[in-house]
Amino acid sequence: MRPTVSFYTCFVLSLCLGLACVVCVSVWNSHWRGGFAWDSSSLQFNWHPVLMVTGLVVLYGIGAVLYRVPLTWGQNKLPWKILHAALMLISLVLSIIGLCAVFDFHNAKNIPNLYSLHSWIGIAVTALFAIQWVVGMAGFLLPWSPTSLRVLLKPIHVWMGGSILTLSIAACISGINEKLFFVFSKNPPYSKLPPEAVLANMLGVLIVAFGMVVLKILSTHEWQRPDSRPEDINYTPILQEENE
Amino acid sequence: MRPTVSFYTCFVLSLCLGLACVVCVSVWNSHWRGGFAWDSSSLQFNWHPVLMVTGLVVLYGIGAVLYRVPLTWGQNKLPWKILHAALMLISLVLSIIGLCAVFDFHNAKNIPNLYSLHSWIGIAVTALFAIQWVVGMAGFLLPWSPTSLRVLLKPIHVWMGGSILTLSIAACISGINEKLFFVFSKNPPYSKLPPEAVLANMLGVLIVAFGMVVLKILSTHEWQRPDSRPEDINYTPILQEENE
Repeated sequence: MRPTVSFYTCFVLSLCLGLACVVCVSVWNSHWRGGFAWDSSSLQFNWHPVLMVTGLVVLYGIGAVLYRVPLTWGQNKLPWKILHAALMLISLVLSIIGLCAVFDFHNAKNIPNLYSLHSWIGIAVTALFAIQWVVGMAGFLLPWSPTSLRVLLKPIHVWMGGSILTLSIAACISGINEKLFFVFSKNPPYSKLPPEAVLANMLGVLIVAFGMVVLKILSTHEWQRPDSRPEDINYTPILQEENE
Repeated sequence: MRPTVSFYTCFVLSLCLGLACVVCVSVWNSHWRGGFAWDSSSLQFNWHPVLMVTGLVVLYGIGAVLYRVPLTWGQNKLPWKILHAALMLISLVLSIIGLCAVFDFHNAKNIPNLYSLHSWIGIAVTALFAIQWVVGMAGFLLPWSPTSLRVLLKPIHVWMGGSILTLSIAACISGINEKLFFVFSKNPPYSKLPPEAVLANMLGVLIVAFGMVVLKILSTHEWQRPDSRPEDINYTPILQEENE
Protein backbone atom coordinates (compact mmCIF):
# COMPACT_ATOMS: atom_id res chain seq x y z
CA MET A 1 0.00 0.00 0.00
CA ARG A 2 1.54 3.32 -1.07
CA PRO A 3 1.21 6.59 0.72
CA THR A 4 -1.51 8.66 -0.82
CA VAL A 5 -2.05 12.37 -1.21
CA SER A 6 -5.40 11.97 0.58
CA PHE A 7 -3.72 10.47 3.65
CA TYR A 8 -1.20 13.29 3.92
CA THR A 9 -3.95 15.86 3.35
CA CYS A 10 -5.87 14.39 6.30
CA PHE A 11 -2.73 14.05 8.44
CA VAL A 12 -1.58 17.66 7.87
CA LEU A 13 -5.17 18.82 8.44
CA SER A 14 -5.28 16.94 11.77
CA LEU A 15 -1.98 18.59 12.82
CA CYS A 16 -3.26 22.06 11.85
CA LEU A 17 -6.62 21.54 13.59
CA GLY A 18 -4.89 20.12 16.68
CA LEU A 19 -2.58 23.15 16.82
CA ALA A 20 -5.57 25.46 16.36
CA CYS A 21 -7.35 23.72 19.29
CA VAL A 22 -4.34 24.20 21.59
CA VAL A 23 -3.90 27.86 20.56
CA CYS A 24 -7.63 28.55 20.93
CA VAL A 25 -8.02 26.97 24.40
CA SER A 26 -4.79 28.69 25.57
CA VAL A 27 -5.85 32.13 24.30
CA TRP A 28 -9.32 31.68 25.84
CA ASN A 29 -7.92 30.88 29.29
CA SER A 30 -4.93 33.23 29.29
CA HIS A 31 -6.52 36.29 27.67
CA TRP A 32 -10.21 36.01 28.65
CA ARG A 33 -10.13 33.95 31.88
CA GLY A 34 -7.18 35.72 33.53
CA GLY A 35 -4.30 33.31 33.02
CA PHE A 36 -2.86 30.48 35.08
CA ALA A 37 -1.69 29.68 38.60
CA TRP A 38 -1.54 26.63 40.92
CA ASP A 39 -3.05 28.18 44.06
CA SER A 40 -6.55 26.58 44.18
CA SER A 41 -8.03 29.79 42.73
CA SER A 42 -10.03 30.10 39.52
CA LEU A 43 -6.67 30.61 37.80
CA GLN A 44 -5.85 27.02 38.73
CA PHE A 45 -9.16 25.89 37.23
CA ASN A 46 -7.98 27.46 33.94
CA TRP A 47 -5.43 24.66 33.58
CA HIS A 48 -8.34 22.18 33.37
CA PRO A 49 -9.64 23.01 29.85
CA VAL A 50 -6.12 23.65 28.51
CA LEU A 51 -4.73 20.33 29.76
CA MET A 52 -7.79 18.24 28.85
CA VAL A 53 -7.96 19.61 25.29
CA THR A 54 -4.18 19.40 24.80
CA GLY A 55 -3.79 15.97 26.44
CA LEU A 56 -7.01 14.00 26.11
CA VAL A 57 -7.93 15.26 22.63
CA VAL A 58 -5.00 16.64 20.60
CA LEU A 59 -1.95 14.65 21.81
CA TYR A 60 -4.17 11.56 22.15
CA GLY A 61 -5.46 11.94 18.58
CA ILE A 62 -1.98 12.51 17.11
CA GLY A 63 -0.63 9.53 19.09
CA ALA A 64 -3.45 7.36 17.77
CA VAL A 65 -2.76 8.01 14.07
CA LEU A 66 1.02 7.69 14.36
CA TYR A 67 1.16 4.18 12.83
CA ARG A 68 -0.75 5.38 9.79
CA VAL A 69 2.11 7.63 8.53
CA PRO A 70 3.40 5.70 5.48
CA LEU A 71 6.96 7.02 6.03
CA THR A 72 7.15 4.70 9.07
CA TRP A 73 6.01 1.57 7.24
CA GLY A 74 9.43 0.61 5.88
CA GLN A 75 10.95 0.80 9.34
CA ASN A 76 10.94 -1.50 12.36
CA LYS A 77 7.66 -1.06 14.24
CA LEU A 78 9.19 -1.12 17.72
CA PRO A 79 10.47 2.49 17.94
CA TRP A 80 7.10 3.73 16.67
CA LYS A 81 5.32 1.53 19.21
CA ILE A 82 7.45 3.06 21.98
CA LEU A 83 6.74 6.58 20.64
CA HIS A 84 3.00 5.71 20.54
CA ALA A 85 3.12 4.53 24.18
CA ALA A 86 5.19 7.58 25.22
CA LEU A 87 2.86 10.09 23.54
CA MET A 88 -0.13 8.37 25.13
CA LEU A 89 1.57 8.45 28.55
CA ILE A 90 2.23 12.21 28.21
CA SER A 91 -1.38 12.64 27.12
CA LEU A 92 -2.60 10.62 30.14
CA VAL A 93 -0.39 12.53 32.59
CA LEU A 94 -1.59 15.90 31.22
CA SER A 95 -5.20 14.70 31.56
CA ILE A 96 -4.65 13.60 35.18
CA ILE A 97 -3.00 16.95 36.04
CA GLY A 98 -5.98 18.62 34.33
CA LEU A 99 -8.32 16.67 36.63
CA CYS A 100 -6.21 17.55 39.70
CA ALA A 101 -6.56 21.25 38.76
CA VAL A 102 -10.35 21.11 38.93
CA PHE A 103 -10.50 18.87 42.03
CA ASP A 104 -8.15 21.24 43.95
CA PHE A 105 -10.19 24.27 42.87
CA HIS A 106 -13.50 22.61 43.86
CA ASN A 107 -12.18 21.43 47.22
CA ALA A 108 -10.80 24.90 48.07
CA LYS A 109 -14.17 26.52 47.24
CA ASN A 110 -16.29 23.72 48.82
CA ILE A 111 -17.82 22.93 45.43
CA PRO A 112 -18.87 19.25 45.23
CA ASN A 113 -17.01 17.03 42.76
CA LEU A 114 -18.34 14.55 40.21
CA TYR A 115 -22.05 15.32 40.14
CA SER A 116 -22.58 16.68 36.59
CA LEU A 117 -22.91 14.48 33.53
CA HIS A 118 -19.84 16.28 32.12
CA SER A 119 -17.81 15.14 35.13
CA TRP A 120 -19.17 11.57 34.93
CA ILE A 121 -18.16 11.29 31.28
CA GLY A 122 -14.83 13.04 31.91
CA ILE A 123 -13.79 10.83 34.81
CA ALA A 124 -14.99 7.70 32.98
CA VAL A 125 -13.00 8.49 29.84
CA THR A 126 -9.83 9.25 31.84
CA ALA A 127 -10.24 5.96 33.75
CA LEU A 128 -10.81 4.05 30.48
CA PHE A 129 -7.73 5.76 29.03
CA ALA A 130 -5.61 4.73 32.05
CA ILE A 131 -6.84 1.12 31.77
CA GLN A 132 -6.23 1.19 28.00
CA TRP A 133 -2.66 2.40 28.53
CA VAL A 134 -1.82 -0.19 31.22
CA VAL A 135 -3.42 -3.08 29.29
CA GLY A 136 -1.76 -1.87 26.05
CA MET A 137 1.64 -1.67 27.73
CA ALA A 138 1.27 -5.13 29.34
CA GLY A 139 -0.23 -6.75 26.26
CA PHE A 140 1.86 -5.28 23.45
CA LEU A 141 5.21 -4.32 24.99
CA LEU A 142 6.01 -6.60 27.93
CA PRO A 143 7.68 -9.99 27.40
CA TRP A 144 5.21 -12.25 29.18
CA SER A 145 2.40 -11.43 26.78
CA PRO A 146 1.72 -14.43 24.49
CA THR A 147 0.83 -13.91 20.81
CA SER A 148 -2.67 -15.31 21.40
CA LEU A 149 -3.33 -12.58 23.98
CA ARG A 150 -2.09 -9.88 21.58
CA VAL A 151 -4.33 -11.20 18.79
CA LEU A 152 -7.27 -11.11 21.21
CA LEU A 153 -6.38 -7.64 22.55
CA LYS A 154 -5.72 -5.78 19.29
CA PRO A 155 -9.34 -5.29 18.09
CA ILE A 156 -10.41 -4.33 21.62
CA HIS A 157 -7.47 -1.87 21.86
CA VAL A 158 -8.38 -0.30 18.49
CA TRP A 159 -12.10 -0.06 19.36
CA MET A 160 -11.42 1.37 22.82
CA GLY A 161 -8.98 3.84 21.22
CA GLY A 162 -11.70 5.29 18.97
CA SER A 163 -14.29 5.19 21.76
CA ILE A 164 -12.02 7.12 24.14
CA LEU A 165 -11.60 9.85 21.51
CA THR A 166 -15.39 9.97 20.98
CA LEU A 167 -16.04 10.26 24.72
CA SER A 168 -13.31 12.87 25.20
CA ILE A 169 -14.97 14.99 22.50
CA ALA A 170 -18.35 14.63 24.28
CA ALA A 171 -16.70 15.57 27.60
CA CYS A 172 -15.01 18.65 26.07
CA ILE A 173 -18.16 19.90 24.31
CA SER A 174 -20.28 19.51 27.46
CA GLY A 175 -17.53 21.11 29.57
CA ILE A 176 -17.12 24.19 27.34
CA ASN A 177 -20.92 24.56 27.14
CA GLU A 178 -21.24 24.32 30.95
CA LYS A 179 -18.38 26.79 31.56
CA LEU A 180 -19.91 29.38 29.22
CA PHE A 181 -23.28 29.17 31.02
CA PHE A 182 -21.44 29.72 34.35
CA VAL A 183 -19.32 32.61 33.03
CA PHE A 184 -22.18 34.39 31.22
CA SER A 185 -24.99 33.75 33.70
CA LYS A 186 -25.63 37.51 34.08
CA ASN A 187 -24.37 40.41 31.93
CA PRO A 188 -23.69 39.90 29.13
CA PRO A 189 -25.69 36.65 28.84
CA TYR A 190 -24.31 33.75 26.79
CA SER A 191 -27.20 34.31 24.36
CA LYS A 192 -25.71 37.68 23.31
CA LEU A 193 -22.63 35.77 22.12
CA PRO A 194 -19.90 38.10 23.47
CA PRO A 195 -16.49 37.67 21.76
CA GLU A 196 -15.24 35.22 24.44
CA ALA A 197 -18.28 32.98 23.89
CA VAL A 198 -17.73 33.01 20.13
CA LEU A 199 -14.07 32.04 20.66
CA ALA A 200 -15.01 29.18 23.04
CA ASN A 201 -17.80 27.96 20.71
CA MET A 202 -15.24 28.00 17.89
CA LEU A 203 -12.93 25.92 20.09
CA GLY A 204 -15.76 23.36 20.32
CA VAL A 205 -16.14 23.37 16.54
CA LEU A 206 -12.36 22.92 16.10
CA ILE A 207 -12.35 19.97 18.55
CA VAL A 208 -15.18 18.34 16.61
CA ALA A 209 -13.40 18.92 13.27
CA PHE A 210 -10.13 17.53 14.68
CA GLY A 211 -11.96 14.45 16.00
CA MET A 212 -13.67 13.86 12.66
CA VAL A 213 -10.37 13.98 10.74
CA VAL A 214 -8.64 11.65 13.23
CA LEU A 215 -11.57 9.20 13.11
CA LYS A 216 -11.39 9.34 9.29
CA ILE A 217 -7.70 8.36 9.42
CA LEU A 218 -8.35 5.60 11.97
CA SER A 219 -11.32 4.13 10.09
CA THR A 220 -9.76 4.06 6.61
CA HIS A 221 -8.71 0.44 6.17
CA GLU A 222 -6.22 1.06 3.35
CA TRP A 223 -4.29 3.57 5.45
CA GLN A 224 -3.50 0.94 8.09
CA ARG A 225 0.14 -0.05 8.44
CA PRO A 226 0.51 -3.36 6.56
CA ASP A 227 1.75 -6.11 8.91
CA SER A 228 3.96 -7.63 6.22
CA ARG A 229 7.32 -7.72 7.98
CA PRO A 230 8.00 -10.87 10.03
CA GLU A 231 8.90 -8.82 13.10
CA ASP A 232 5.54 -7.06 12.90
CA ILE A 233 3.56 -10.30 12.87
CA ASN A 234 5.59 -12.25 15.41
CA TYR A 235 7.47 -9.39 16.97
CA THR A 236 9.49 -9.73 20.14
CA PRO A 237 8.05 -7.68 22.98
CA ILE A 238 10.26 -4.79 24.08
CA LEU A 239 11.83 -6.07 27.28
CA GLN A 240 12.62 -9.43 25.72
CA GLU A 241 14.21 -7.67 22.74
CA GLU A 242 16.28 -5.48 25.02
CA ASN A 243 17.54 -8.53 26.92
CA GLU A 244 18.55 -10.48 23.85
CA MET B 1 -17.77 -14.74 6.65
CA ARG B 2 -20.10 -16.53 9.07
CA PRO B 3 -22.25 -14.93 11.71
CA THR B 4 -20.52 -14.98 15.03
CA VAL B 5 -21.73 -15.14 18.58
CA SER B 6 -19.79 -11.95 19.31
CA PHE B 7 -21.65 -10.04 16.57
CA TYR B 8 -25.06 -11.10 17.86
CA THR B 9 -24.00 -10.31 21.43
CA CYS B 10 -23.11 -6.76 20.34
CA PHE B 11 -26.24 -6.43 18.19
CA VAL B 12 -28.63 -7.57 20.96
CA LEU B 13 -26.74 -5.35 23.41
CA SER B 14 -27.20 -2.35 21.08
CA LEU B 15 -30.96 -3.08 20.84
CA CYS B 16 -31.27 -3.38 24.64
CA LEU B 17 -29.23 -0.21 25.27
CA GLY B 18 -31.19 1.67 22.58
CA LEU B 19 -34.49 0.59 24.19
CA ALA B 20 -33.16 1.60 27.61
CA CYS B 21 -32.24 5.07 26.23
CA VAL B 22 -35.75 5.59 24.81
CA VAL B 23 -37.43 4.40 28.02
CA CYS B 24 -35.12 6.53 30.18
CA VAL B 25 -35.57 9.78 28.20
CA SER B 26 -39.35 9.19 28.02
CA VAL B 27 -39.69 8.52 31.77
CA TRP B 28 -37.53 11.56 32.54
CA ASN B 29 -39.70 13.90 30.46
CA SER B 30 -43.10 12.38 31.20
CA HIS B 31 -42.71 11.68 34.92
CA TRP B 32 -40.22 14.35 36.07
CA ARG B 33 -40.65 17.15 33.53
CA GLY B 34 -44.48 17.14 33.42
CA GLY B 35 -45.25 15.33 30.16
CA PHE B 36 -45.84 16.48 26.61
CA ALA B 37 -47.87 19.00 24.62
CA TRP B 38 -47.53 21.00 21.39
CA ASP B 39 -48.50 24.45 22.69
CA SER B 40 -45.14 26.30 22.78
CA SER B 41 -44.95 25.69 26.56
CA SER B 42 -42.20 23.86 28.42
CA LEU B 43 -44.23 20.71 27.79
CA GLN B 44 -43.49 21.21 24.09
CA PHE B 45 -39.80 21.53 24.90
CA ASN B 46 -40.00 18.05 26.47
CA TRP B 47 -40.40 16.56 23.00
CA HIS B 48 -36.91 17.85 22.17
CA PRO B 49 -34.78 15.40 24.22
CA VAL B 50 -37.16 12.49 23.55
CA LEU B 51 -37.13 12.98 19.76
CA MET B 52 -33.41 13.73 19.49
CA VAL B 53 -32.39 10.68 21.55
CA THR B 54 -34.92 8.41 19.83
CA GLY B 55 -34.25 9.72 16.31
CA LEU B 56 -30.73 11.06 16.08
CA VAL B 57 -29.12 8.46 18.35
CA VAL B 58 -31.12 5.22 18.72
CA LEU B 59 -32.97 4.82 15.39
CA TYR B 60 -29.94 6.26 13.59
CA GLY B 61 -27.59 3.78 15.29
CA ILE B 62 -29.84 0.79 14.59
CA GLY B 63 -30.27 1.92 10.97
CA ALA B 64 -26.49 2.20 10.61
CA VAL B 65 -25.73 -1.38 11.69
CA LEU B 66 -28.55 -2.98 9.69
CA TYR B 67 -26.27 -4.30 6.92
CA ARG B 68 -24.07 -6.04 9.47
CA VAL B 69 -26.77 -8.59 10.47
CA PRO B 70 -25.47 -11.83 8.90
CA LEU B 71 -29.04 -13.13 8.37
CA THR B 72 -29.40 -10.54 5.59
CA TRP B 73 -26.20 -11.49 3.77
CA GLY B 74 -27.70 -14.32 1.72
CA GLN B 75 -30.45 -12.06 0.46
CA ASN B 76 -30.65 -9.36 -2.21
CA LYS B 77 -29.20 -6.13 -0.81
CA LEU B 78 -31.85 -3.85 -2.31
CA PRO B 79 -34.68 -4.36 0.23
CA TRP B 80 -32.20 -3.85 3.07
CA LYS B 81 -30.90 -0.72 1.36
CA ILE B 82 -34.46 0.62 1.15
CA LEU B 83 -35.06 -0.28 4.81
CA HIS B 84 -31.77 1.50 5.73
CA ALA B 85 -32.88 4.63 3.82
CA ALA B 86 -36.39 4.45 5.34
CA LEU B 87 -35.12 4.08 8.93
CA MET B 88 -32.72 6.96 8.38
CA LEU B 89 -35.53 9.10 6.94
CA ILE B 90 -37.73 8.41 10.00
CA SER B 91 -34.74 9.22 12.21
CA LEU B 92 -34.14 12.49 10.30
CA VAL B 93 -37.82 13.50 10.44
CA LEU B 94 -37.97 12.81 14.21
CA SER B 95 -34.81 14.91 14.66
CA ILE B 96 -36.27 17.82 12.66
CA ILE B 97 -39.53 17.68 14.67
CA GLY B 98 -37.35 17.62 17.80
CA LEU B 99 -35.64 20.82 16.61
CA CYS B 100 -39.00 22.45 15.78
CA ALA B 101 -40.14 21.70 19.35
CA VAL B 102 -37.29 23.71 20.86
CA PHE B 103 -37.42 26.54 18.26
CA ASP B 104 -41.20 27.01 18.89
CA PHE B 105 -40.67 26.99 22.65
CA HIS B 106 -37.79 29.51 22.44
CA ASN B 107 -39.69 31.81 20.07
CA ALA B 108 -42.79 31.82 22.30
CA LYS B 109 -40.68 32.70 25.38
CA ASN B 110 -38.40 35.18 23.52
CA ILE B 111 -35.39 32.99 24.25
CA PRO B 112 -32.70 33.41 21.55
CA ASN B 113 -31.93 30.41 19.35
CA LEU B 114 -28.61 28.88 18.35
CA TYR B 115 -26.15 30.61 20.65
CA SER B 116 -24.87 27.75 22.86
CA LEU B 117 -22.19 25.30 21.78
CA HIS B 118 -24.78 22.53 22.33
CA SER B 119 -27.07 24.19 19.77
CA TRP B 120 -24.21 24.76 17.30
CA ILE B 121 -23.23 21.08 17.44
CA GLY B 122 -26.87 19.96 17.36
CA ILE B 123 -27.84 22.03 14.32
CA ALA B 124 -24.60 21.10 12.53
CA VAL B 125 -25.12 17.37 13.06
CA THR B 126 -28.75 17.54 11.88
CA ALA B 127 -27.67 19.48 8.77
CA LEU B 128 -24.88 16.95 8.08
CA PHE B 129 -27.42 14.13 8.54
CA ALA B 130 -29.82 15.75 6.05
CA ILE B 131 -27.00 16.19 3.51
CA GLN B 132 -25.86 12.60 4.14
CA TRP B 133 -29.38 11.29 3.52
CA VAL B 134 -29.89 13.28 0.30
CA VAL B 135 -26.44 12.44 -1.09
CA GLY B 136 -26.86 8.78 -0.04
CA MET B 137 -30.26 8.57 -1.71
CA ALA B 138 -29.00 10.21 -4.92
CA GLY B 139 -25.71 8.31 -4.99
CA PHE B 140 -26.80 4.82 -4.00
CA LEU B 141 -30.47 4.48 -4.97
CA LEU B 142 -31.25 6.71 -7.97
CA PRO B 143 -30.62 5.51 -11.54
CA TRP B 144 -28.41 8.33 -12.81
CA SER B 145 -25.63 7.58 -10.33
CA PRO B 146 -22.64 6.01 -12.12
CA THR B 147 -20.62 3.23 -10.48
CA SER B 148 -17.55 5.49 -10.29
CA LEU B 149 -19.53 7.99 -8.19
CA ARG B 150 -20.72 5.22 -5.86
CA VAL B 151 -17.18 3.93 -5.41
CA LEU B 152 -16.05 7.48 -4.57
CA LEU B 153 -19.01 8.13 -2.26
CA LYS B 154 -19.00 4.92 -0.20
CA PRO B 155 -15.99 5.62 2.08
CA ILE B 156 -17.20 9.21 2.59
CA HIS B 157 -20.72 7.92 3.39
CA VAL B 158 -19.34 5.41 5.92
CA TRP B 159 -17.04 7.98 7.55
CA MET B 160 -19.77 10.64 7.74
CA GLY B 161 -22.11 7.99 9.18
CA GLY B 162 -19.78 7.32 12.12
CA SER B 163 -19.00 11.03 12.55
CA ILE B 164 -22.70 11.95 12.71
CA LEU B 165 -23.20 9.39 15.50
CA THR B 166 -20.18 10.78 17.38
CA LEU B 167 -21.47 14.36 17.06
CA SER B 168 -25.01 13.38 18.05
CA ILE B 169 -23.62 11.79 21.24
CA ALA B 170 -21.67 15.00 21.99
CA ALA B 171 -24.82 17.07 21.34
CA CYS B 172 -26.94 14.84 23.64
CA ILE B 173 -24.41 14.82 26.49
CA SER B 174 -24.00 18.61 26.38
CA GLY B 175 -27.79 19.07 26.11
CA ILE B 176 -28.62 16.86 29.10
CA ASN B 177 -25.85 18.53 31.13
CA GLU B 178 -27.15 22.02 30.20
CA LYS B 179 -30.79 21.09 30.96
CA LEU B 180 -29.87 19.74 34.41
CA PHE B 181 -28.02 22.97 35.31
CA PHE B 182 -31.12 24.96 34.22
CA VAL B 183 -33.57 22.72 36.12
CA PHE B 184 -31.50 22.51 39.32
CA SER B 185 -30.14 26.06 39.45
CA LYS B 186 -31.68 26.62 42.93
CA ASN B 187 -33.09 24.07 45.37
CA PRO B 188 -32.15 21.29 45.25
CA PRO B 189 -28.93 22.10 43.36
CA TYR B 190 -27.65 19.69 40.70
CA SER B 191 -24.69 18.98 42.99
CA LYS B 192 -27.01 17.26 45.51
CA LEU B 193 -27.87 14.75 42.77
CA PRO B 194 -31.65 14.55 43.29
CA PRO B 195 -33.28 11.40 41.81
CA GLU B 196 -34.18 13.18 38.54
CA ALA B 197 -30.54 14.24 38.03
CA VAL B 198 -29.33 10.68 38.66
CA LEU B 199 -31.85 9.38 36.09
CA ALA B 200 -30.78 11.97 33.49
CA ASN B 201 -27.07 11.34 34.16
CA MET B 202 -27.78 7.61 33.72
CA LEU B 203 -29.45 8.46 30.40
CA GLY B 204 -26.18 10.10 29.36
CA VAL B 205 -24.23 6.99 30.37
CA LEU B 206 -26.67 4.77 28.43
CA ILE B 207 -26.31 6.96 25.31
CA VAL B 208 -22.52 6.69 25.54
CA ALA B 209 -22.69 2.90 26.03
CA PHE B 210 -25.09 2.55 23.07
CA GLY B 211 -22.78 4.66 20.90
CA MET B 212 -19.74 2.61 21.86
CA VAL B 213 -21.44 -0.68 20.97
CA VAL B 214 -22.70 0.70 17.63
CA LEU B 215 -19.23 2.08 16.79
CA LYS B 216 -17.78 -1.34 17.69
CA ILE B 217 -20.13 -3.02 15.20
CA LEU B 218 -19.40 -0.40 12.51
CA SER B 219 -15.62 -0.56 12.96
CA THR B 220 -15.24 -4.35 12.98
CA HIS B 221 -14.06 -5.17 9.47
CA GLU B 222 -15.03 -8.86 9.53
CA TRP B 223 -18.62 -8.03 10.43
CA GLN B 224 -19.09 -6.04 7.19
CA ARG B 225 -21.51 -7.52 4.65
CA PRO B 226 -19.33 -9.25 2.02
CA ASP B 227 -19.96 -7.72 -1.43
CA SER B 228 -19.71 -11.11 -3.14
CA ARG B 229 -22.97 -11.21 -5.08
CA PRO B 230 -22.81 -9.65 -8.57
CA GLU B 231 -25.85 -7.48 -7.87
CA ASP B 232 -24.10 -6.09 -4.80
CA ILE B 233 -21.02 -5.04 -6.73
CA ASN B 234 -22.67 -3.75 -9.89
CA TYR B 235 -26.22 -3.47 -8.62
CA THR B 236 -28.92 -1.68 -10.53
CA PRO B 237 -30.09 1.45 -8.73
CA ILE B 238 -33.67 1.26 -7.43
CA LEU B 239 -35.59 3.36 -9.96
CA GLN B 240 -33.87 1.71 -12.91
CA GLU B 241 -34.68 -1.72 -11.42
CA GLU B 242 -38.32 -0.75 -10.99
CA ASN B 243 -38.53 0.36 -14.64
CA GLU B 244 -37.01 -2.79 -16.03
